[in-house]
Amino acid sequence: MKILVIGAAGMVGRKLTAALLAAGQVGGQPIESPALADIVAPEQPAASVLVSTIATDLSEPGSAALLLEDRPDLIFHLAAIVSGEAEADFEKGYRINLDGTRHLFEAIRLGGLAQPYRPRVVFTSSIAVFGEPLPAVIGDSQDHTPLTSYGTQKAICELLLADYSRRGFLDGVGIRLPTIAVRPGKPNKAASGFFSGIIREPLAGMEAILPVDDSVRHWFASPRAAVGFLLHAAQMDTAPLGQRRNLTMPGLSVTVAEQIAALQRVAGSAATELIRREPDEVVARIVAGWPQAFDTQRASALGFRAETSFDEIIRIHIEDELPPA
Amino acid sequence: MKILVIGAAGMVGRKLTAALLAAGQVGGQPIESPALADIVAPEQPAASVLVSTIATDLSEPGSAALLLEDRPDLIFHLAAIVSGEAEADFEKGYRINLDGTRHLFEAIRLGGLAQPYRPRVVFTSSIAVFGEPLPAVIGDSQDHTPLTSYGTQKAICELLLADYSRRGFLDGVGIRLPTIAVRPGKPNKAASGFFSGIIREPLAGMEAILPVDDSVRHWFASPRAAVGFLLHAAQMDTAPLGQRRNLTMPGLSVTVAEQIAALQRVAGSAATELIRREPDEVVARIVAGWPQAFDTQRASALGFRAETSFDEIIRIHIEDELPPA
Repeated sequence: MKILVIGAAGMVGRKLTAALLAAGQVGGQPIESPALADIVAPEQPAASVLVSTIATDLSEPGSAALLLEDRPDLIFHLAAIVSGEAEADFEKGYRINLDGTRHLFEAIRLGGLAQPYRPRVVFTSSIAVFGEPLPAVIGDSQDHTPLTSYGTQKAICELLLADYSRRGFLDGVGIRLPTIAVRPGKPNKAASGFFSGIIREPLAGMEAILPVDDSVRHWFASPRAAVGFLLHAAQMDTAPLGQRRNLTMPGLSVTVAEQIAALQRVAGSAATELIRREPDEVVARIVAGWPQAFDTQRASALGFRAETSFDEIIRIHIEDELPPA
Repeated sequence: MKILVIGAAGMVGRKLTAALLAAGQVGGQPIESPALADIVAPEQPAASVLVSTIATDLSEPGSAALLLEDRPDLIFHLAAIVSGEAEADFEKGYRINLDGTRHLFEAIRLGGLAQPYRPRVVFTSSIAVFGEPLPAVIGDSQDHTPLTSYGTQKAICELLLADYSRRGFLDGVGIRLPTIAVRPGKPNKAASGFFSGIIREPLAGMEAILPVDDSVRHWFASPRAAVGFLLHAAQMDTAPLGQRRNLTMPGLSVTVAEQIAALQRVAGSAATELIRREPDEVVARIVAGWPQAFDTQRASALGFRAETSFDEIIRIHIEDELPPA
């Protein structure tokens, strides 16, 4: 099975690549000639098979056709610029997040004109397709009312994925990821950054800023769960999806207070005392418009699984990211 | 007030143009330099003001910028190829229905870079953004699950309209029209054609083919109501829309049997006996996936009005289209 990962240099892309190479197979079929693409060349991973790494901009003419030269059977499309950047640079957001994806889908369609070609395409969408006013618990048939250009671009790509699948050009699965926590690495300026920061920094003995009230509720899954979603989407039987190719992934709805209580249980007061409350009206206003909880019956029935406690999410971070004690 | 109608040569476009010119004003502001555009040059209407008519393909580079040269204050964008054609010709559907609309929105945005420009844009969307499985009555927060490329293209344009409005580039109102009945003139390529045909042809003394079962239920408004929706969307206060710029228009949910009973009441058995049942599996399958009824609370609260009986819809057709008895 030939595999292409687009957006392989990002955090989830790197973890997905490592999981694929460690497994050596997808759905029982051995992986051959894996290719990793991103806007910057992905690092060459340690692997027993030859891995191609490609630096390319999917929004440039010809880029998608080049990536498809080997006719991969399975394509993970994770590449996107994040919400803050898509909001700050309108043209770049549409070019990368919409046109890039459309070029990929078109190149797949055109690749199938001469000889049959219908790869599985796993696309990462986002809960940013939803925006307030929203019900407290969002069901599987909630309409898309994005309040950012990023969310708009993801919602459009979901529609394209479904139509290209319906027409038989590709076999698509779109997965709306929860906010990923605990993100490894350094603090960033993303509005959602503190959700990871208040766990990650204290576990490393560093102070973390909490800019919102303890009562704020949000929707989470671990990086390990995200990789699990992607691998399941790559192998699942897509027939039960019907024409509804996009799914909200399961996750865990917890408040900041519940996050902190979990940190207390896992790492004690020495950790939680490093959280400093410094209310930020701007961040609080942004976060107030975000979804808080979902009822993900469809994805759960189809076998997607996330964590069921924030303690578990913290322990996964400790296992996967921190040096052994 | 400068007005541009794109898609002015179509049935709704012609009726809208006539209504605009007859009124001579929109929202109390006199109409000046109205311009009518379509892929073929719209007919020069009888009018006391100078009317420009332009044949242009909005999907061609430069077309949108040309149309905006006069910086219209109000733009009606009705241009689209219909569902049957968009399904038969994948590339043409995306080029006309998606790229054409995006070019228009982009030209508006770019027109506002040098000096402030934020026209009202009234966009005709469609209930084809919804596809089965659906609830019996579809509410205002139903997600978009189009089962055609046409419906996909309309759903994408709705998302773009909302994002361009949110960013302040234009002041958009998207209206999802019911199936328009009774359409005057000859049948077009739409699979929905028979819904009008079984009324229009018998009223003209001609036989009509009914390809589906009498129990089929669907959602209707008259051409006169459609023009009313457009004019209301052009004049309404858009502040109450918030970020939700797209609205399902009110309509009337009736079965084919109820359509025929209305025809019987209005025109008697001489008319209904001209309906010939000739089941067509392909049409029946397409229509089976269509919405049957909506709860349009938002649009109703915002002042949009449709007919409340199919008898009324038939009488409007007789008044507006047939020669006086």
